[in-house]
Amino acid sequence: MSDQINFSCPIPLSGYDKITLAHGGGGSFSYKLLHELIFKYLNSEPLAMEHDGAVMDINGVKLAFTTDSYVIDPVFFPGGNIGELAVYGTVNDIACCGAKPLFLSLSLIIEEGLPVEQLETIIASVKKAADRTGVVVVTGDTKVVGHGKGDKIFINTSGIGVVHANANISPRRAEPGDAVLLSGTIADHGIAIMASRSGLEFRTSILSDSAPLNDMIELLLSAIPDVHVLRDPTRGGLASTLNEIARSSNTGMHIDENLIPVKEEVKSVCEILGLDPLYIANEGKLVVIVPGNVAGKALDILRSHPLGRQASIIGTVTSDHPGMVRMKTSIGTNRIVDMISGEQLPRIC
Amino acid sequence: MSDQINFSCPIPLSGYDKITLAHGGGGSFSYKLLHELIFKYLNSEPLAMEHDGAVMDINGVKLAFTTDSYVIDPVFFPGGNIGELAVYGTVNDIACCGAKPLFLSLSLIIEEGLPVEQLETIIASVKKAADRTGVVVVTGDTKVVGHGKGDKIFINTSGIGVVHANANISPRRAEPGDAVLLSGTIADHGIAIMASRSGLEFRTSILSDSAPLNDMIELLLSAIPDVHVLRDPTRGGLASTLNEIARSSNTGMHIDENLIPVKEEVKSVCEILGLDPLYIANEGKLVVIVPGNVAGKALDILRSHPLGRQASIIGTVTSDHPGMVRMKTSIGTNRIVDMISGEQLPRIC
Repeated sequence: MSDQINFSCPIPLSGYDKITLAHGGGGSFSYKLLHELIFKYLNSEPLAMEHDGAVMDINGVKLAFTTDSYVIDPVFFPGGNIGELAVYGTVNDIACCGAKPLFLSLSLIIEEGLPVEQLETIIASVKKAADRTGVVVVTGDTKVVGHGKGDKIFINTSGIGVVHANANISPRRAEPGDAVLLSGTIADHGIAIMASRSGLEFRTSILSDSAPLNDMIELLLSAIPDVHVLRDPTRGGLASTLNEIARSSNTGMHIDENLIPVKEEVKSVCEILGLDPLYIANEGKLVVIVPGNVAGKALDILRSHPLGRQASIIGTVTSDHPGMVRMKTSIGTNRIVDMISGEQLPRIC
Repeated sequence: MSDQINFSCPIPLSGYDKITLAHGGGGSFSYKLLHELIFKYLNSEPLAMEHDGAVMDINGVKLAFTTDSYVIDPVFFPGGNIGELAVYGTVNDIACCGAKPLFLSLSLIIEEGLPVEQLETIIASVKKAADRTGVVVVTGDTKVVGHGKGDKIFINTSGIGVVHANANISPRRAEPGDAVLLSGTIADHGIAIMASRSGLEFRTSILSDSAPLNDMIELLLSAIPDVHVLRDPTRGGLASTLNEIARSSNTGMHIDENLIPVKEEVKSVCEILGLDPLYIANEGKLVVIVPGNVAGKALDILRSHPLGRQASIIGTVTSDHPGMVRMKTSIGTNRIVDMISGEQLPRIC
């Protein structure tokens, strides 16, 4: 296996001795890397939760703490750039812990030669996105690496938020009988990036859905104290997110393809390229799992928010098939929706 | 100026339109980038403090929050590796805010092809360093970029700590009459990296001084409540750190070269290569500024700790020459010690 990465197969074998792009794809290779290597050494309780962030009690204050490095290519894409993505992505992770985002750190790894003008545009977007979401960048770091040792700019943002009173959000809390809600159309971000990646021969009008979810989540948590799970389905798409929740909570998921909103243009691009929108990254969508009896109320709240107008109840949590996601397809058959192995497109966020 | 980076001069001109390695060096180019671009948009009070991290009050709890990306080359070096460096570096930044480090995030940007064995060694070092310093890694992220789009591995750690009761540490608090203390020999880290960088034709027995300072700082803060400034002189070395403090506090610094400990072997390497140890990075040294009347007590405390055995009082804070650092040289003359322009060696941390 020692020279497996010399093959051009995008989905490498499972016994590996070198890191491959698939290990960063958010699918089963990422899962293996985490479980077989990282968690072997780093095994704190918050890490083992495999949530979007950690929740800790510090002197009686319940804080959420998250981190994410953004290595997206290209850094400017239809509907946004890496600066706002780095703010919204981390704000969303904090919010998905049931917390109100307050403070961000900003750490830049810049490749030598980046035009100062581009850096300025990115920093201006960071500021605008921070203002929009009500967070403050309080600390930072800047590193520069030589030409060919990075790729324009990588940004890490870490964030701190205060957990809402009574919120108890965890992927382990999905229970049979719960409803699974989705806030809107899937795959917009991934397809927008794919279409703007140099070398591809098509152009679309699809924009990334990159947006902050904290406001919509706050609405939800104030009205429904017993929200079980919140998650933004980024890398690996909706399918990987639901699989992770199913594994963490040891429940099954049953979803209905006809109830999952996908834009017509996104559907067409997926068909042309042979891609499955279920596995494609989103940057402004929310998965919500709540007890079945408040599903309607949760749906109304999502739909009342500009970012949730196309929200839908897409399925239920079941006790059968624990750890698996089943889907009734648009033609009426049933299929297993597995975790993706690698990633259809690397460096999507 | 548009093609300035095509010249091989390591210290670029000041009117620039592309980012150069010097902008990441921690010297005057980094300072300009921060003040002329980043702070133009991001101007929160904690950022403007230009401390090693931010101190914020959250519901009555005083927290320190810091971030650092480590892009060191090579990732394994004499005396350590990027894993422990990423833990100690951020632990030190939290401690230099006068806080007890508690929680870390760990975000990896891995270049495709990194041997899994090397990754495992690095993660094991993260764990060992976290255990040694009493911090817990609670949240993380892993990204993979294609071959030639990164350099083996970059690590971001962000950290949270609780500020010690009564501690009020800030680079603005240096006052005329204060004493400037240094915890030990300078330039060990930078010279160790330089000697291990491929392409250089010498080998030494010099090890990086990479070490956690939180324990020594805790001793200091419990015995001396009125510590004014704490700083670990990393990128840009002791000279840049003292210049930053002088500018932030609008005071002068007067130091004595004869009182600054430098290992004989480090001195020799610096002489051969024409380098000034004052500008070379450290990763386990501490600058302490305290009122003159407790300088002796502070020195005793530093010397009582294994990492401070060679501590020394190296100078005083003055009211004359505000914003400048003057040094009495080993031959008895006086000179201005300016902030470095670029960096003698890029990617030192």
